[in-house]
Amino acid sequence: MARIVMKFGGTSVADLDRIRAAAGRVAREVEAGNQVAVVVSAMAGVTNQLVGWCQSLSPLHDAREYDAVVATGEQVTAGLMAIALQAQGVEARSWQGWQIPVVTDGAHGAARIERIEGKGLIHRMETGQVAVVTGFQGLGPDRRTTTLGRGGSDTSAVALAAALAAERCDIYTDVDGIYTTDPRIVPKARKLARITYEEMLELASVGAKVLQTRSVELAMKERVRVQVRSSFTDAPGTLVVDEDEIVEKPMVAGIAYSRDEAKITVRSVPDRPGIAAALFGPLAAANVNVDMIVQNVAADGTTDLTFTLGKADLPRARRLLDDAHEAIGYAEIAADADVAKISVVGVGMRSHAGVASTMFRALAEKAINIQVISTSEIKVSVLVGAEYTELAVRALHTAYGLDVA
Amino acid sequence: MARIVMKFGGTSVADLDRIRAAAGRVAREVEAGNQVAVVVSAMAGVTNQLVGWCQSLSPLHDAREYDAVVATGEQVTAGLMAIALQAQGVEARSWQGWQIPVVTDGAHGAARIERIEGKGLIHRMETGQVAVVTGFQGLGPDRRTTTLGRGGSDTSAVALAAALAAERCDIYTDVDGIYTTDPRIVPKARKLARITYEEMLELASVGAKVLQTRSVELAMKERVRVQVRSSFTDAPGTLVVDEDEIVEKPMVAGIAYSRDEAKITVRSVPDRPGIAAALFGPLAAANVNVDMIVQNVAADGTTDLTFTLGKADLPRARRLLDDAHEAIGYAEIAADADVAKISVVGVGMRSHAGVASTMFRALAEKAINIQVISTSEIKVSVLVGAEYTELAVRALHTAYGLDVA
Repeated sequence: MARIVMKFGGTSVADLDRIRAAAGRVAREVEAGNQVAVVVSAMAGVTNQLVGWCQSLSPLHDAREYDAVVATGEQVTAGLMAIALQAQGVEARSWQGWQIPVVTDGAHGAARIERIEGKGLIHRMETGQVAVVTGFQGLGPDRRTTTLGRGGSDTSAVALAAALAAERCDIYTDVDGIYTTDPRIVPKARKLARITYEEMLELASVGAKVLQTRSVELAMKERVRVQVRSSFTDAPGTLVVDEDEIVEKPMVAGIAYSRDEAKITVRSVPDRPGIAAALFGPLAAANVNVDMIVQNVAADGTTDLTFTLGKADLPRARRLLDDAHEAIGYAEIAADADVAKISVVGVGMRSHAGVASTMFRALAEKAINIQVISTSEIKVSVLVGAEYTELAVRALHTAYGLDVA
Repeated sequence: MARIVMKFGGTSVADLDRIRAAAGRVAREVEAGNQVAVVVSAMAGVTNQLVGWCQSLSPLHDAREYDAVVATGEQVTAGLMAIALQAQGVEARSWQGWQIPVVTDGAHGAARIERIEGKGLIHRMETGQVAVVTGFQGLGPDRRTTTLGRGGSDTSAVALAAALAAERCDIYTDVDGIYTTDPRIVPKARKLARITYEEMLELASVGAKVLQTRSVELAMKERVRVQVRSSFTDAPGTLVVDEDEIVEKPMVAGIAYSRDEAKITVRSVPDRPGIAAALFGPLAAANVNVDMIVQNVAADGTTDLTFTLGKADLPRARRLLDDAHEAIGYAEIAADADVAKISVVGVGMRSHAGVASTMFRALAEKAINIQVISTSEIKVSVLVGAEYTELAVRALHTAYGLDVA
């Protein structure tokens, strides 16, 4: 007997047939003797429609009203899931954020869960009743419904698993696990049986859009064992766990890529103290997230600065730098949106040497020019021309011995 | 300065344009210096879809989960209406049933409002904020959302008007008022400026589907002045008020008809005490509502009994009477679904003689045979062949002097 949380994303509850199928999976876990809490997203497409309505009525809509509107998507799915479970002979009831309650801060539209008062829910679960919980929503200090921001249902599920001291949090989605890289690019990509939180975080943030980053951070902090698995097959998924649970740590767990990056080079910046602050201060103030930063060694009293940022922020960043031209005193700005970031990720790097040099050699063999390099404890990222994305990913996948035999 | 409640039905908030238009009406009342509470239904079609989903998953679904699902329709409209009002510069917030709270009994799916704890809401309204309230829903004793049953938003609006001691409850709908009869049948039908609660109740229950019966009963009990008016024109509507507010009471306020009736005749029933109980007991136990009842004078120790009931109940009623054949001992049963009930309604009948005779004469002149007659203090109803419906309504409308000059 174990207590588990099962979370179903929008595509897994997209219509009545899929809700029935998801209910069938829950029923099997109940029959196996488990206490189950189910967290549901809105049916696929519903949230987008609700968001669209709010935006049509007013681009600058009241976030509290936005929350009242969009939170209904999960409420519908939770009620339908409870009905579907009952129809399969499983005792169940739905719980909305305000009923449990899932207490959040007051940041409507992007709230953070502060605590889950799960006593009533646990009591019902102990009598054998499945708790069907609306993902993505909570109760704010103003006694109104809050939402956690897009993708927040993953975070709801992990937070609930922590509050319930659940043995496992299963995230059912439209992929069947975490792969060594994107299988659409590398057919020889391998599904990982296990991955560490840290690796998952790096993979999530560089483009493998399976789990919401915040949910992984929370799982790591609360030591919640997360399993990513498919709603459509019975294949085992990928377990996201603590490093201690993985005995044999491969040097590289996976290769990620992102085409959402852009590069800005600021040429001939006066090489004096405070210049980086003058340059990045306005960007930070405008919420432009800067990722990789490279500064060349100075010559003739000036230096070149290159950094990457989200492609969507490019026009805004250019405008901000234009405005700061006099204050900074650079010669010119060059922007390039035609780039991709390729990253190799693995906790094994900590104890293995030569990860970066393997990367550079593999790319050089394919004549791929590296524009920017950045490294962290468990990741090496390079910026390359966008047209080399697939070639680079495939070369690295082979170079690190990740290809399926 | 007055406090008013404005209720918008499903067709009045069917899409974003109509929500904007409804918000415009609210804005005008606010500009005129009124304190306004708005009650909204779900967007037209939404409730039907949600109900359909529940029924598809399980015909005998849990009413508590059904309520959780279908209550979302009003929640969406309330949030969108608040956003639309804000976009027009009107301060507004949405309130869900559990937030006010609108306290109901525990009869999920058909709950009754017990009280509305309107303090917080009144406080906000007094600062000039429009309260946008979800119709149709409340909070049950189990701390879960309840719904009032179809059409319940009218009742929500009247109950809120009573709790707020509002001067008026305006029901915006897709007709522009209450007419002397159905204008599709009688082009000369006249819109009534005022009608009494009692008349409205009789008209509502016999087929003029404008206001939900329960809402009129509540308005009568709480003395709430209700105005029925169109969302699509600025023409004045019909005020439903206490008899005292109408100085000149016409003998007949309106002519109603219903084609949803059926007639059953039970022939040669033994004419002995208790036979009516033996006949109608099983029907009542099975929730079959019997309307008009006529029993002929007995001859040869037997009698014929005729009664009317809802057309939808006819097969069930036949089965019940077949089962009770031996217990009752009748000769045969004749059923006829091809009938219509025509009613003339008016509080003025109390002080005018000759209402019924005018009716019988007018129908006789058109050679319309009357099958059953029943009367109440303010209503005379007759059952006629369904094919005479329009002819009968037109003849009576003229006979009582209701035609537009």
